[in-house]
Amino acid sequence: MYAFASRVFPLCRSITGNGVRETLGEVAGRIPLEIHEVPSGTQVLDWTVPEEWNIRDAYIATADGRRVVDFGESNLHVVSYSDHVRQDMTLEDLRPHLHVHAERPDWIPYRTSYYTRSWGFCLSRNQLDALEAGTYEVVIDSTLAPGALTYGECFLPGQNEDEIVLTTHVCHPSLANDNVSGIAVLTELGAALAGLPRRFSYRLLFIPGTIGSITWLARNEGRLSRVIGGLVIACAGDSAPLSYKRSRRGETPVDRAGAHVVGRSGGRILDFVPWGWDERQFNSPGFDIPVGCLTRSLEGEFPEYHSSADDLDLISADRLETALQATLEILDVLEHDRTYRNLSPRGEPQLGKRGLYRGLGGPDPGTEQLAILWVLNQSDGSHTLLDIAERSGLAFSDIRRASDALLEAGLLAGAP
Amino acid sequence: MYAFASRVFPLCRSITGNGVRETLGEVAGRIPLEIHEVPSGTQVLDWTVPEEWNIRDAYIATADGRRVVDFGESNLHVVSYSDHVRQDMTLEDLRPHLHVHAERPDWIPYRTSYYTRSWGFCLSRNQLDALEAGTYEVVIDSTLAPGALTYGECFLPGQNEDEIVLTTHVCHPSLANDNVSGIAVLTELGAALAGLPRRFSYRLLFIPGTIGSITWLARNEGRLSRVIGGLVIACAGDSAPLSYKRSRRGETPVDRAGAHVVGRSGGRILDFVPWGWDERQFNSPGFDIPVGCLTRSLEGEFPEYHSSADDLDLISADRLETALQATLEILDVLEHDRTYRNLSPRGEPQLGKRGLYRGLGGPDPGTEQLAILWVLNQSDGSHTLLDIAERSGLAFSDIRRASDALLEAGLLAGAP
Amino acid sequence: MYAFASRVFPLCRSITGNGVRETLGEVAGRIPLEIHEVPSGTQVLDWTVPEEWNIRDAYIATADGRRVVDFGESNLHVVSYSDHVRQDMTLEDLRPHLHVHAERPDWIPYRTSYYTRSWGFCLSRNQLDALEAGTYEVVIDSTLAPGALTYGECFLPGQNEDEIVLTTHVCHPSLANDNVSGIAVLTELGAALAGLPRRFSYRLLFIPGTIGSITWLARNEGRLSRVIGGLVIACAGDSAPLSYKRSRRGETPVDRAGAHVVGRSGGRILDFVPWGWDERQFNSPGFDIPVGCLTRSLEGEFPEYHSSADDLDLISADRLETALQATLEILDVLEHDRTYRNLSPRGEPQLGKRGLYRGLGGPDPGTEQLAILWVLNQSDGSHTLLDIAERSGLAFSDIRRASDALLEAGLLAGAP
Repeated sequence: MYAFASRVFPLCRSITGNGVRETLGEVAGRIPLEIHEVPSGTQVLDWTVPEEWNIRDAYIATADGRRVVDFGESNLHVVSYSDHVRQDMTLEDLRPHLHVHAERPDWIPYRTSYYTRSWGFCLSRNQLDALEAGTYEVVIDSTLAPGALTYGECFLPGQNEDEIVLTTHVCHPSLANDNVSGIAVLTELGAALAGLPRRFSYRLLFIPGTIGSITWLARNEGRLSRVIGGLVIACAGDSAPLSYKRSRRGETPVDRAGAHVVGRSGGRILDFVPWGWDERQFNSPGFDIPVGCLTRSLEGEFPEYHSSADDLDLISADRLETALQATLEILDVLEHDRTYRNLSPRGEPQLGKRGLYRGLGGPDPGTEQLAILWVLNQSDGSHTLLDIAERSGLAFSDIRRASDALLEAGLLAGAP
Repeated sequence: MYAFASRVFPLCRSITGNGVRETLGEVAGRIPLEIHEVPSGTQVLDWTVPEEWNIRDAYIATADGRRVVDFGESNLHVVSYSDHVRQDMTLEDLRPHLHVHAERPDWIPYRTSYYTRSWGFCLSRNQLDALEAGTYEVVIDSTLAPGALTYGECFLPGQNEDEIVLTTHVCHPSLANDNVSGIAVLTELGAALAGLPRRFSYRLLFIPGTIGSITWLARNEGRLSRVIGGLVIACAGDSAPLSYKRSRRGETPVDRAGAHVVGRSGGRILDFVPWGWDERQFNSPGFDIPVGCLTRSLEGEFPEYHSSADDLDLISADRLETALQATLEILDVLEHDRTYRNLSPRGEPQLGKRGLYRGLGGPDPGTEQLAILWVLNQSDGSHTLLDIAERSGLAFSDIRRASDALLEAGLLAGAP
Repeated sequence: MYAFASRVFPLCRSITGNGVRETLGEVAGRIPLEIHEVPSGTQVLDWTVPEEWNIRDAYIATADGRRVVDFGESNLHVVSYSDHVRQDMTLEDLRPHLHVHAERPDWIPYRTSYYTRSWGFCLSRNQLDALEAGTYEVVIDSTLAPGALTYGECFLPGQNEDEIVLTTHVCHPSLANDNVSGIAVLTELGAALAGLPRRFSYRLLFIPGTIGSITWLARNEGRLSRVIGGLVIACAGDSAPLSYKRSRRGETPVDRAGAHVVGRSGGRILDFVPWGWDERQFNSPGFDIPVGCLTRSLEGEFPEYHSSADDLDLISADRLETALQATLEILDVLEHDRTYRNLSPRGEPQLGKRGLYRGLGGPDPGTEQLAILWVLNQSDGSHTLLDIAERSGLAFSDIRRASDALLEAGLLAGAP
């Protein structure tokens, strides 16, 4: 995943344009991906698909032609969706178009202006301080014109048509944790899910933030009743512990699975707030689809957020891997959470004669033994395996292993 | 309010008598007040209105006519409802009738004997210790005779007939925090409410403790079905933070409003106990009217409670003012808590084109933006503004401001 | 109780055999006890009553006849249910049959092998280390043969047929806290209950662990619908504070009574786990009879657990007595928890004229006064005395005393 992240990091993504297409091309090299192009001007819910933005070059140069700010060095230097500009300006006139980081003199901030026509440059405070009064050549060689909004969709059918939606945003330029890390983890998740048996169907969406989920929701309203929940994956590579942010409803299956897995990993469980990434759109009251959020840091929570310091040094292969594994564990809970009935419910069955009990009595039952006793005690048709895991304080995986052993011993059966 | 408090502080109030009438006269100088006189002997619920008590003078004097304890110096010196006395007594015989403060040698305690005929003097331990053996002239020039129980009622009609009852007790003599402070705050609250638009009707009661609320309840049983809740206001001037004591039911609108406002002010939220002031009568099981209590210290909680040290130095103008403002805020929540419906509930509406969103993307949404997103997200017809304030952790006032902006933008409508 | 405990301590109990019979004989000397003998081979639920085990002697002796391990010194020396053995063995061959304590070199561990045919000795690590290589005479003079499983039952009828089951396990040899202490407390509890008026019927069971409750449940299925709950009593004599472990259902009357009494004593309230003693069988999902557990330490929780250090020095007369009193208090709550109706529910009744209120007003109501006000306030037919005790934070006994006074004053009546 780190190598994949390194490959897509340099691309200049925005909410539309060729940077998104090139990124989706990399994803399509790893998993089957359907690319959708939605024309500018298409009405999507309360929004309109904007014109497509592309940029070739941008710089601020001194009178003698020296580039003092250069898009070629960092694609953060240009405010995303900046208008085309080619003019000579005094520093004084240019100044309102220059943005620096509020706290760190050596970091370039990341700024956008998608829905208000404008233009600007981002640079470090050190760069700004070095600019001398005088006239500069200011060039942004961009086009904002009718085109399309591009997103990618990977559908993995399961035994039944109930779908789980997994999304990540593909609209940020060279920012590693937010959100090259999410793109890498979701891509690899798709590859892993493709190789697993699936009870549910999975739909992986690689979409620009906000307008992407708005667009997908608008184009798929007929399908939404099948979506039982989902996850937004983002900021998966920094050094913070894992976080699970609940959906609006707060206690749905995906929330309980997310809280169980992330809670046991030592991570944070956060209540829903209508701020964050594309979960906001799924959790709007007219849809109310329970989509949670799997991250490490939240947006705005790490100092490097939305600056040039969110680079490939901020993320690591290990942390991408544990984020992927946690996501797979959450989906494993969803896939295997079932309700069973104890077939020998009056008193404990004699486990010893079935090889499920230690012979020589001693003080400590051990996790395996306890898990068996919990499953037997709680399997009256009204508690799922996750209920049992939560009540017992044991891991879902231990409870599931116990239920498998009891099924094999004929002591358990699926409840209607 | 402090000036008002200073004016009524010297009056010798009890549960009946001219001290109450003079106090109500001061209140009537500020707000419209109906004075009720209920004859002694009237049966009120399980109680009987007692005879009226008035006192002109009282003292203990030495053989040579020197007053060693003098009602003229402090009206706490006489046990309230003391019988008429005029006799010479040895110190030894007098002793069982003398009460001192259990802990502080320089404080005069406050004692009453409303329902058991008795008489007595309260004095400081220093005064008692200075008394020499010998014979004293003991005079209590009081009358306990058929008369009336007096209380005041200020009714402020609103758009609908649902009533909120606001009460304070007017039966304590020269004690500042308990409860000249409550009388001052309730009077000023009446003046403020009179000048505000009102959805609910308000009934302010200035009543003697226990027997006063018993009497009002007995005489207004036909009206009680309209009373949706209320507040007792007392001990509003001392240096303790604000307290809200819940009603018996515990989670009614007045409780939630009280807990929200007082909780956010850094004050205490206390569960109902059947001990305190007149909320006890409203919250009795046969009425079960949810009346909470807004105070600073509770009764019995501050060392100066029911002693001569509860004087005008114990209360301050600032603290009376913040108690008044908190009460107004609680009533503001009750007045404006409504349920709305998001008219663009599928996805977030595009706020930018309606001037409700910042143009240039940055990390921190700010309270105003968050409040708008919360109101949109939760307004599905099942959450009130107070529900949203509590879930979001924002102030009711912020949420209400957001709902006003969204109403104006046509994105919100009242739910049925 | 300590004397009783000392008397039964030396007996070599197991899940069957004469040690159990002799122990039940001691119990029968104090309370009326029906002895049941259930033949080996009887099918009981998923189990079969095992053969009866008795032991006369056992030892390991050196070639010169010196007993280096001797059952006569401690009945823990033999693994319970060991097969008959009489042979000469090298230390090397004997070694797999020798068990020592994992942590303490001077303690003999306690081991059993009820359902897997086997044999073995337990000894201290010091004893083991002192054994020299060579040949030993190894003798276990035991019989495992068709016989019976023995248990004792004491039934105390009450005003109605609803039963409370009280059990303790009688299968451990010379171990004082686990569970001579439980046998002593349950016996004395029977004697105390026999002398009290009883609303409920009580059934005291002195049974071998697991197989005993399985057997009783199998033989009494027709009666189980009358069993409203119960308690397992065990480990009642060590120095840990009292513990109440909830039943599977968690909030039944016995759970609430147990949590109230043990919680107020400063003890621990523990959630149900399907590990422990015979509560496991009652709480199995097919029966779901709410049986809690009253202990000091839990099984496995004290270092001396299942070792020779669990001797008579570990328990004390005082601690047995407070465990007995707590159990009686729990049963007192169950016996007397009722719902009442305040007959003067509108406002507070005037308590003074009924002698239920102090004459001279002062600041602190005192527990007695508060309890009266709480009972009046909450007795609307929907709260029991225990509900009121829990809401008020007062003891059930204080609330019950208040309800008695109010009943006598005609202010309270039983609710339908």
